[in-house]
Amino acid sequence: MTSEHIVKSYDVELGKLTSTVARMGGQAEQQLRNALEALAGRDEDLAAGVIAADDEADALDQQVADQTVRVLALRAPVADDLRTVLTALKVSAELERVADLAKNIAKRSLVLNQSPIVQSVRATARMGHLVLDRIRRVLDAYLARDADAALEVWRDDEEVDDLYSSLFREILTYMMEDPRTITPCTHLMFVAKNIERCGDHATNIAEMTHFLAKGAMLRQERPKHDTSTT
Amino acid sequence: MTSEHIVKSYDVELGKLTSTVARMGGQAEQQLRNALEALAGRDEDLAAGVIAADDEADALDQQVADQTVRVLALRAPVADDLRTVLTALKVSAELERVADLAKNIAKRSLVLNQSPIVQSVRATARMGHLVLDRIRRVLDAYLARDADAALEVWRDDEEVDDLYSSLFREILTYMMEDPRTITPCTHLMFVAKNIERCGDHATNIAEMTHFLAKGAMLRQERPKHDTSTT
Repeated sequence: MTSEHIVKSYDVELGKLTSTVARMGGQAEQQLRNALEALAGRDEDLAAGVIAADDEADALDQQVADQTVRVLALRAPVADDLRTVLTALKVSAELERVADLAKNIAKRSLVLNQSPIVQSVRATARMGHLVLDRIRRVLDAYLARDADAALEVWRDDEEVDDLYSSLFREILTYMMEDPRTITPCTHLMFVAKNIERCGDHATNIAEMTHFLAKGAMLRQERPKHDTSTT
Repeated sequence: MTSEHIVKSYDVELGKLTSTVARMGGQAEQQLRNALEALAGRDEDLAAGVIAADDEADALDQQVADQTVRVLALRAPVADDLRTVLTALKVSAELERVADLAKNIAKRSLVLNQSPIVQSVRATARMGHLVLDRIRRVLDAYLARDADAALEVWRDDEEVDDLYSSLFREILTYMMEDPRTITPCTHLMFVAKNIERCGDHATNIAEMTHFLAKGAMLRQERPKHDTSTT
């Protein structure tokens, strides 16, 4: 969409910013994938790796912040370019949170390994892979500025919320049936909640992508099917 | 700190942006206060009011976004002014999340009212008031661009994290002692987690305020005392 600028280095800077966000996206995706694998496979080394790699996400986030300030201060972008810069800033904040949630999942998977395996772990990991797929698709949509693809991801949030609500009830039932599972089940609940929140971040990125591509906010009410608090 | 500009309306716009963020801050604080009161007093009307008022936070957040784009596009601020604008954008995102967490606390307080009162509710509300105090102080620091006051709030995060960790263990113990309390205790755990996250947002705003006032990041490692996942 962005027409070429007379000052070539300007395009280079905008491109650099977007590719830093793309790297953050790839990294966040990888962190969540590894955290889910560590959870399902009770893989302590992998979990430790996710925890250790979180610094990279913070460093990339800082890089986006620096590049944003640079472009804004030196180039004073307007219209489409300004939208590009501000969206990069917002998307990177969402991705930083996804990476942070992945780290928390990895930490809790280590706690879960101290108890016998809880039944719902597999269902939780499955929900995680659904969210992972949404993150992958929304990043593709963002980088391609594809509002339709973003809208599709945005609509899928219901499915994750429904899954989360039923998982929440399932885990509650296990706790009541066998109080010895209360500690691991509680941590698993937070893992499930973290995954659901990763899904919310995908939804936010979908809204930002829509704004980036169309210049207008998604006006429809966001789908909300998490009924665990009702 | 900001020296006066030749174009008077520019200062007016920057001032407007900051006062919108200040309003958001006041609103987020009020929402959290009401949610805590609804929780401790089992006040369903108050909880419903918090849930209904969340739209205002979203509207103010949108107003900040619009004002930011306007200032950036029309004035192309640099240096201190650019920092002011970008910080306003980031602080408002944190405040929007605090308001969102307050809404979730209100929702869960309604669920908690369906069971006999759980012992740890009072300790949870106390932790909430500690966080509320941190939010109030960090907003004052932000509006006064007071790096020292911000640093003080930033350091206080340990206290909340320690409280959260011990509360987490206390609630777990109640669940094990009396499995009939599992459902309300689980919701209370999420309430406690939400409060702890509000505290994290106060910490983030403290870091942003430091950046705003000093132009440099807080280099020290952030204090982290939540040991519920260890």
